[in-house]
Amino acid sequence: MQLGIIGLGKMGGNMRTRLRAAGQEVVGYDTDVSLSDAKDLTDLVSQLAAPRAVWVMVPSGEPTRQTIQALAPLLSEGDIVIDGGNSRFTDDQAHADLLAESGIGYLDVGVSGGVWGPENGYALMVGGDKEHVERLMPIFDALKPPGEFGFVHAGRVGAGHYAKMVHNGIEYGLMQAYAEGYELLAASEYVDDVPAVFKSWREGTVVRSWLLDLLDRALDEDPELAGIAGYAPDSGEGRWTVEESIRLAVPTPAIAASLYARFASRQDDSPTMKAVAALRNQFGGHAVKSKDESQ
Amino acid sequence: MQLGIIGLGKMGGNMRTRLRAAGQEVVGYDTDVSLSDAKDLTDLVSQLAAPRAVWVMVPSGEPTRQTIQALAPLLSEGDIVIDGGNSRFTDDQAHADLLAESGIGYLDVGVSGGVWGPENGYALMVGGDKEHVERLMPIFDALKPPGEFGFVHAGRVGAGHYAKMVHNGIEYGLMQAYAEGYELLAASEYVDDVPAVFKSWREGTVVRSWLLDLLDRALDEDPELAGIAGYAPDSGEGRWTVEESIRLAVPTPAIAASLYARFASRQDDSPTMKAVAALRNQFGGHAVKSKDESQ
Amino acid sequence: MQLGIIGLGKMGGNMRTRLRAAGQEVVGYDTDVSLSDAKDLTDLVSQLAAPRAVWVMVPSGEPTRQTIQALAPLLSEGDIVIDGGNSRFTDDQAHADLLAESGIGYLDVGVSGGVWGPENGYALMVGGDKEHVERLMPIFDALKPPGEFGFVHAGRVGAGHYAKMVHNGIEYGLMQAYAEGYELLAASEYVDDVPAVFKSWREGTVVRSWLLDLLDRALDEDPELAGIAGYAPDSGEGRWTVEESIRLAVPTPAIAASLYARFASRQDDSPTMKAVAALRNQFGGHAVKSKDESQ
Amino acid sequence: MQLGIIGLGKMGGNMRTRLRAAGQEVVGYDTDVSLSDAKDLTDLVSQLAAPRAVWVMVPSGEPTRQTIQALAPLLSEGDIVIDGGNSRFTDDQAHADLLAESGIGYLDVGVSGGVWGPENGYALMVGGDKEHVERLMPIFDALKPPGEFGFVHAGRVGAGHYAKMVHNGIEYGLMQAYAEGYELLAASEYVDDVPAVFKSWREGTVVRSWLLDLLDRALDEDPELAGIAGYAPDSGEGRWTVEESIRLAVPTPAIAASLYARFASRQDDSPTMKAVAALRNQFGGHAVKSKDESQ
Repeated sequence: MQLGIIGLGKMGGNMRTRLRAAGQEVVGYDTDVSLSDAKDLTDLVSQLAAPRAVWVMVPSGEPTRQTIQALAPLLSEGDIVIDGGNSRFTDDQAHADLLAESGIGYLDVGVSGGVWGPENGYALMVGGDKEHVERLMPIFDALKPPGEFGFVHAGRVGAGHYAKMVHNGIEYGLMQAYAEGYELLAASEYVDDVPAVFKSWREGTVVRSWLLDLLDRALDEDPELAGIAGYAPDSGEGRWTVEESIRLAVPTPAIAASLYARFASRQDDSPTMKAVAALRNQFGGHAVKSKDESQ
Repeated sequence: MQLGIIGLGKMGGNMRTRLRAAGQEVVGYDTDVSLSDAKDLTDLVSQLAAPRAVWVMVPSGEPTRQTIQALAPLLSEGDIVIDGGNSRFTDDQAHADLLAESGIGYLDVGVSGGVWGPENGYALMVGGDKEHVERLMPIFDALKPPGEFGFVHAGRVGAGHYAKMVHNGIEYGLMQAYAEGYELLAASEYVDDVPAVFKSWREGTVVRSWLLDLLDRALDEDPELAGIAGYAPDSGEGRWTVEESIRLAVPTPAIAASLYARFASRQDDSPTMKAVAALRNQFGGHAVKSKDESQ
Repeated sequence: MQLGIIGLGKMGGNMRTRLRAAGQEVVGYDTDVSLSDAKDLTDLVSQLAAPRAVWVMVPSGEPTRQTIQALAPLLSEGDIVIDGGNSRFTDDQAHADLLAESGIGYLDVGVSGGVWGPENGYALMVGGDKEHVERLMPIFDALKPPGEFGFVHAGRVGAGHYAKMVHNGIEYGLMQAYAEGYELLAASEYVDDVPAVFKSWREGTVVRSWLLDLLDRALDEDPELAGIAGYAPDSGEGRWTVEESIRLAVPTPAIAASLYARFASRQDDSPTMKAVAALRNQFGGHAVKSKDESQ
Repeated sequence: MQLGIIGLGKMGGNMRTRLRAAGQEVVGYDTDVSLSDAKDLTDLVSQLAAPRAVWVMVPSGEPTRQTIQALAPLLSEGDIVIDGGNSRFTDDQAHADLLAESGIGYLDVGVSGGVWGPENGYALMVGGDKEHVERLMPIFDALKPPGEFGFVHAGRVGAGHYAKMVHNGIEYGLMQAYAEGYELLAASEYVDDVPAVFKSWREGTVVRSWLLDLLDRALDEDPELAGIAGYAPDSGEGRWTVEESIRLAVPTPAIAASLYARFASRQDDSPTMKAVAALRNQFGGHAVKSKDESQ
């Protein structure tokens, strides 16, 4: 089938390639004219036959919002807009409502796969009406990994981004668990060959996983992770997951610990621990380490 | 090669079967005579030709200690004892020292695989001297999963149980991360089909793993986990991991959170939260829920 | 000076009493006519001489919002509205902006003191313009505890509620710390008289505090807290504090742990731990506790 | 009454002073002859009339153990030894048993007060037999703060150090809670004068405490804590508290978070976060920060 894609960066561009390889017809638009198949959004829409499907794959937040607002008047009743970016699930209903005013459908799709998507396929979590999902199935089938897994129609509008958000929250917890185990092994006087231990776990253990395979790969490249600083950004989905745990009163201590570990990793000095050190000094006469000493 | 196994319970018994299927000669001893190939330890030892190898597969702590103490005088210089149970790594050096007095070697082996071992093979993490490891390689090769992974000589005496302990600590964190994500999805008004979301993650996602496959299996059997109480025992390795984090001053917040979640799951009522409720009542006049109301 | 108070519940009513005892002139309004000094908001405003000051003391969120919206057209340039309720700090700027359109000033005040306020005075944390704060100082002085502490002009509009929010977040952490210590002492085989230990800490220790005094009081009334269920609601400020920790990327693990402990205290059964139990059963053949057994 | 004190460092020396000011007769021994009233332990014992009481105030662990072992043969039936150091409660029964062989009594005393003890008195938590406690009451009364609080006979041998351990665990949690609140206030764009907010909380609030008074004092001296590094040692009691939480299966998430925050404060770079960064790089192609960049 025909699909318009807006945003041909690393993700959108690779998806265009995978779709075309699967025999789908893709018209892509990007502000980078060297990548784009259309001059502008109007041109993109004009190259698609109604009922159209346009996949928005731009940064979440304002860029996605503006793109959908710009698309709305260009599309027609019966068309469908898909937001495949990393939007917060709370943005989706507003987009669906805006488009519904013109009879345009809306699907939100959480996409997992990153740099491995072109090779393995993209896992897709979809929210929206069943009829819209069914219309897009040829596209979803072309993008998803071969086999029986990798696609779900998770629920109503917002459910796709919601499922992806929780996926990423879990991912934070999994990474933190492996990483804490790594630090323990590296700190212990018992284990000589930490990378070999991780490698051995890739079969027959309870902890085998794709993330473990990747950690093994990283340790193959740099057995002591000597070239990597202990500094981890966070993208948004981890924060939203913890925010959801608060809204829903669901205790998520391991995921929250993982998020906080990332926050802490980005601090040069911890104001919290400055206050703790100041208190210790006040009541116990314990010496504090001055800023100068600690550097 | 020849191997004596002491303890033919679920683990030891299945290992005997797997070893025999691989052409190894196994003499097993168990207090359950219907399982045992030997009348007693003396008989077991007498059925093995020197230099012998005897694999102890009994509960950790006192039973393992007593078994090794009973074995020591029965064995001869050049023999090897293997502790394949879930012993704390701190027990191993004492066992090695005791046996070394008689010139007997010692290996500690962390074994992963549980009920899946007979089908997939057992992952093995081994601590001890290289020469002892090499002597036992035919046994290790027969037990481990086929393929390049699943076996590691992790380091000196204690390193095998140490690696297994950290493996289990990581496992606690992984399970907790998936479980927290499960609760969020189940609590949310967005996602209709929680089991379908987990199933979809089995390909193309960052969180794919064997544990995820198992959770999918559990949800196939009971989509709302309605028949399962939120009650989780803990075995020892999780506790030891957190104790090690304290000894080594390594922060492991996600693993500790996972352990504490299990502790909390086993409490009918939380004394901590009784004290919090009492305090709220004192300063704010907030009503407390009496024991009767809460039931 | 003259002050209008809207909302004469436990807090507002006690504040009226304290202000009058200090010689201030208060006109109160409440929907409960038995408490009210005015028929309605119009009557309240008409009983005050310009420039007026009206203190809103109603539940946060919609009730506060509606009250301020209703007040705006009744007041005149130069008047001041004070929100003394438990509003989220993010509500304040909108209220200030709305009122500023009519030249009306706005202060947000975090009030601490609860049921002890009438006896000890109310601690006040104020956000807004300096000129507005200065106008209200006679009221603040009458409400606050005697002595040099208990009042702060914390910063711009929102700063009062912000400081109160963080105060409550800290309070969550303090309560949790005492309560965890309580549970340890109660669980230990060493300490015979747990209440006596807490009582002894009230002088000479690092942990002495007003909360400790209250816990001692609670233990005097019920030494084993036998009549209190381990069930703790949360009010909003704790959640907002953790949400702020996410917005500002500040790790607050102890406060978040305290909030999660309250969430967990309100669950009959934990879906997270159901999933953990299901996983243990899958990989280890560990028996699960059925829902029936656990009751 | 007469008391021997072994160890005249900051704590022991100040306690001698306080006891003498209260009219008690103290013979002190220290390896520093300029402080000591006795040539050696034998001389110390000879200066005391039976039945004697000797207070050991030396570093916990080996020094305390050796001192008690050296004292045992010098003392007589009916004498009492008091360990007032920061010993782990698990050391106490062994000391009591050793001394009991010679009919010598034993008390363990957790002492709180630090540099403030000489001014405010020392809070005392005592474990041991009632008859021994009663014999020492004149000393305890002289050391403790004036007023009704500050002393408890907490239980059997070990209970004094146990109560002190939990006291310190709580202290960790309290400090962390204030410190996290400090960081939030300092990070926020709303609050202009963070020290003023803390100062204001000293009356009328739920969070007022001696620790808050000390934090106010520290902020008076250095309003931005600019001269203090975010680096906090930990003494032992915090670790033991978390170890006890594991032994007793009591969830103590806030106290454990406080301990881990101290561990993290002492790391230049976090191996855990290096592993997280390596994983992010592997699956997402996210750039890692090299060690060089991060400095």
